[in-house]
Amino acid sequence: MKQLIECVPNFSEGRRPEVIGAIAEPFKNTPGCYLFDCRADEDHNRLVVSLVGSPEPVQTALIAAAKIAVRHIDMETHAGGHPRIGAVDVIPFTPLRNMTMPECADLARSFGERFYRETEIPVYFYEEAALRPDRRRLEVVRRGQYEALKKEVADPARHPDVGEPRLHPRAGATVIGARKFLVAFNVNLGTTDVAVAKRIAEAIRASSGGLCHVKGIGLALKDRGLVQVSLNVTDHEKNPLYRVTEFVRTEARRWGVEVVETEVYGMVPAAALMSSAEYYMRIAGFDPAQIIELRLLEMMG
Amino acid sequence: MKQLIECVPNFSEGRRPEVIGAIAEPFKNTPGCYLFDCRADEDHNRLVVSLVGSPEPVQTALIAAAKIAVRHIDMETHAGGHPRIGAVDVIPFTPLRNMTMPECADLARSFGERFYRETEIPVYFYEEAALRPDRRRLEVVRRGQYEALKKEVADPARHPDVGEPRLHPRAGATVIGARKFLVAFNVNLGTTDVAVAKRIAEAIRASSGGLCHVKGIGLALKDRGLVQVSLNVTDHEKNPLYRVTEFVRTEARRWGVEVVETEVYGMVPAAALMSSAEYYMRIAGFDPAQIIELRLLEMMG
Repeated sequence: MKQLIECVPNFSEGRRPEVIGAIAEPFKNTPGCYLFDCRADEDHNRLVVSLVGSPEPVQTALIAAAKIAVRHIDMETHAGGHPRIGAVDVIPFTPLRNMTMPECADLARSFGERFYRETEIPVYFYEEAALRPDRRRLEVVRRGQYEALKKEVADPARHPDVGEPRLHPRAGATVIGARKFLVAFNVNLGTTDVAVAKRIAEAIRASSGGLCHVKGIGLALKDRGLVQVSLNVTDHEKNPLYRVTEFVRTEARRWGVEVVETEVYGMVPAAALMSSAEYYMRIAGFDPAQIIELRLLEMMG
Repeated sequence: MKQLIECVPNFSEGRRPEVIGAIAEPFKNTPGCYLFDCRADEDHNRLVVSLVGSPEPVQTALIAAAKIAVRHIDMETHAGGHPRIGAVDVIPFTPLRNMTMPECADLARSFGERFYRETEIPVYFYEEAALRPDRRRLEVVRRGQYEALKKEVADPARHPDVGEPRLHPRAGATVIGARKFLVAFNVNLGTTDVAVAKRIAEAIRASSGGLCHVKGIGLALKDRGLVQVSLNVTDHEKNPLYRVTEFVRTEARRWGVEVVETEVYGMVPAAALMSSAEYYMRIAGFDPAQIIELRLLEMMG
């Protein structure tokens, strides 16, 4: 089949239903672009859209939606709880099938050029698509948000990667990038002692020296009499779910605590679960093309 | 998405490439019918085709292929190592998505009527589509093969389920049915003692009182210094792969023998592996619609 990507564009509008509907329209009506989820948050005043499809239709729909967003969103009057620098705040591309990460980064960069040509919104590249190492991290690019960037954009250190060194008068700037698929994964433990979950979260997360592609916190599930190690796995190929599970199990054993259950939150690529089935059952020489549904998807193109 | 079925028609031709090619043609060229595999065996003089698709295009392609088979295959002169009663020997339908087994059995029966109308080949129904309990088993329907059935078809006990009580002069009869997806699954053990594999196969298979939907034999993998419990799981929902694996592991422990690896042979539905990932990782409340590829397949229709 053709290349397949996920894209999760974030728009700075979470309150006006008619604007949200108008922005979502091209994602619903562009053949080959599949709208998986569309979630508006009033407090954040932000719309998070989840798309899957081939690169071309996804890009076409993104451009159309961006033009609608520019017409309806004015950053000069926008307020909301989530950090943002533009009406079309951030567009991350994720490779799903038949695409490498370098190819996806190239896609993000060429889309950034097209995006600027068609919307006149300046573009910053982040994560795998970053052109400057310091711009890999989204929070660095977005520092000070729209209000600060409006002045600082003239400073060469904050010049956009594409476009003139000034923000779009209404739509600000857009951050475009490439990153791996993020799996939200929780491990629930049979204790009411939240300290156990917090210690394990500290042991496993990258920020305190654990697994390189895991973020995590420990919290109590009071109603259930359990605690939870709540994790984001930012690279499930390098840090597969079975390894994360066994890591938590091993640490929990130190406290005489059992893994009661795990939770996969939201969407997940088939490979993230297959690798765990392969591990636990020791399946030798398995090829994902043996899975009927994946083969069919390839054949349907 | 629409209903999805697998179908594995068997044709009594495994030697003449031009005939094999002609029979395969409609499976390749009917939109909505996806040809997964096409395997001719010279000794068996038999062609086994593996199809996936929506019921309508799969049936259309089957009728077209059957008409070609009737033109080129004469059961009066056919010889081969595999039991058979007709040019289009057997057509099993398997429900894959959005279809229950009773619906699939109905599909098999209505297809049987259409098949007879369009080809004049009489039809027997087997397994879940059987109209008489004694015809559930394929080997009963095929008893004595083409040569015996030609005479015995006049006997009411062997009358076809659809059509006059006589065979098609060239194409014999066809057995049509509905059955669950069959998963070929092997468990390789770290011993050279084939008796261990044979004992475990005996313990697990239905025919000697084990799991109801498992067939199995024990054999030696001499080159590898291992033995194998070679299994067919005829209902992976009732006898999931993790349970089969753990059953074998428990029995092997009695002999101080380890499960070295397992093998999934050929195609497998995603659910057969997902259920194992769910079991080993204790994933709570998982919905297959969370898997991107399955969701996409639904949306692509």
